[in-house]
Amino acid sequence: MTDIVILGAGNVGYHLAKVFSKTPDINLVQLYNRTLQTIRCFEKDTVITNQLHTLKKADIYIICVSDEAIESVSKAIPSTNALVVHTSGSTPLEVLNHHKHYGVFYPLQSFSKHRSIDFSSIPICIEAKHVNDLKVLENLALRISDTITYMDTVQRGEIHKAAVFVNNFVNHLYYIGETICEENNISNTILHPLIKETSNKVMNLSPFNAQTGPAKRGDKKTIENHLKKLSGINKEIYKLLSHSIANLYGKKL
Amino acid sequence: MTDIVILGAGNVGYHLAKVFSKTPDINLVQLYNRTLQTIRCFEKDTVITNQLHTLKKADIYIICVSDEAIESVSKAIPSTNALVVHTSGSTPLEVLNHHKHYGVFYPLQSFSKHRSIDFSSIPICIEAKHVNDLKVLENLALRISDTITYMDTVQRGEIHKAAVFVNNFVNHLYYIGETICEENNISNTILHPLIKETSNKVMNLSPFNAQTGPAKRGDKKTIENHLKKLSGINKEIYKLLSHSIANLYGKKL
Repeated sequence: MTDIVILGAGNVGYHLAKVFSKTPDINLVQLYNRTLQTIRCFEKDTVITNQLHTLKKADIYIICVSDEAIESVSKAIPSTNALVVHTSGSTPLEVLNHHKHYGVFYPLQSFSKHRSIDFSSIPICIEAKHVNDLKVLENLALRISDTITYMDTVQRGEIHKAAVFVNNFVNHLYYIGETICEENNISNTILHPLIKETSNKVMNLSPFNAQTGPAKRGDKKTIENHLKKLSGINKEIYKLLSHSIANLYGKKL
Repeated sequence: MTDIVILGAGNVGYHLAKVFSKTPDINLVQLYNRTLQTIRCFEKDTVITNQLHTLKKADIYIICVSDEAIESVSKAIPSTNALVVHTSGSTPLEVLNHHKHYGVFYPLQSFSKHRSIDFSSIPICIEAKHVNDLKVLENLALRISDTITYMDTVQRGEIHKAAVFVNNFVNHLYYIGETICEENNISNTILHPLIKETSNKVMNLSPFNAQTGPAKRGDKKTIENHLKKLSGINKEIYKLLSHSIANLYGKKL
């Protein structure tokens, strides 16, 4: 049985607490969060606290607070032989080096509280200085996921950057698409089959080969028509992305 | 039995010929394409031709050529009582008004030749001047799809613009994400679960509520770190989209 404490119940901490509280051979002994109200729903599953000085003993402490709070929160963890890890894509391993055993446990996924998630397909990127700690992290990750990847701080930063493109920015383009529908009294669900197919496509076809549309064709007329009906930052986004696509396929706009 | 002729075998024409050649009560009597080689694979299913003056008689002519060729190709169609339609998102209905019966049959999807497609979930946007022609188009569309939408030329142009954002631009962001993986010797399949979840999410959650990440949080430090490791147009894209997201959530970068 592995005793773990989770610190922080934002999107990542919330879902990790959910999954680990139901994982065999894992004992979620405590969940800390700055505000207690947020974690009341875990009262049946574990001990909850908003006091860092009341942290219980555990084998692994998983820090899920915001990047800038990781270091200070980690200092509240009693110096023990426990393994202390953070879950941040963009924070170096070494911010935890005042602990004897430390590492990173970064699930590469976009979590939303009101959406349940299947951890088994989520890649978990792990890092540790000592091989034994890495082994412990690997065993922990394998309890919830089938895809474990060793990744150093630099690679993790890069994959986090890539994730911003394929998740945050993509989602923002969905937002713009839906806004256009709403402005024209068209139900935004009409875009859903296209959104689904676009994402399914890249599972089998490289995005380079999957590309279609006016910018790839160098179709200036359609692009000009679209630009006429855009303004503000959406117009800038349309221009910049069209230029980037056209450049890639050797077209001039 | 409805006799149809398809003109043009680009991505849209190819897939429409595929589906209509297998649809009960539809008789694909001919497939025209400028180059015959492209449509040799349809020889078993229909008569193929690259000569516009040999067009056969049909009930419906479906023009699937590039936008700028629609008008000239449509003029090669013998003046009959047949219904002549194009399949373009960004071309007005009226380019076909030299025909007695004319309309638009626009499937809102991104087609790639080397990827099979299930038409049943693809929204077909139809337009016609005369109600009877609209009825004919609706019946045709219902043979292959469950989602038929009446849309005028302006709305269709807008939905095509929205499609550029959620398909072409999204696919380009996938391309950038995969490039970052490759540059760092990380298999790009690591991004696939994130890509899948991002698109699945917006089926149930509005993209406004689904957003996460540094720009939404106003996390300047992470954004600066990412920008340091970007250059050229990808850096511009990162900056612009981050600003757009930050603005939307009232954050300053």
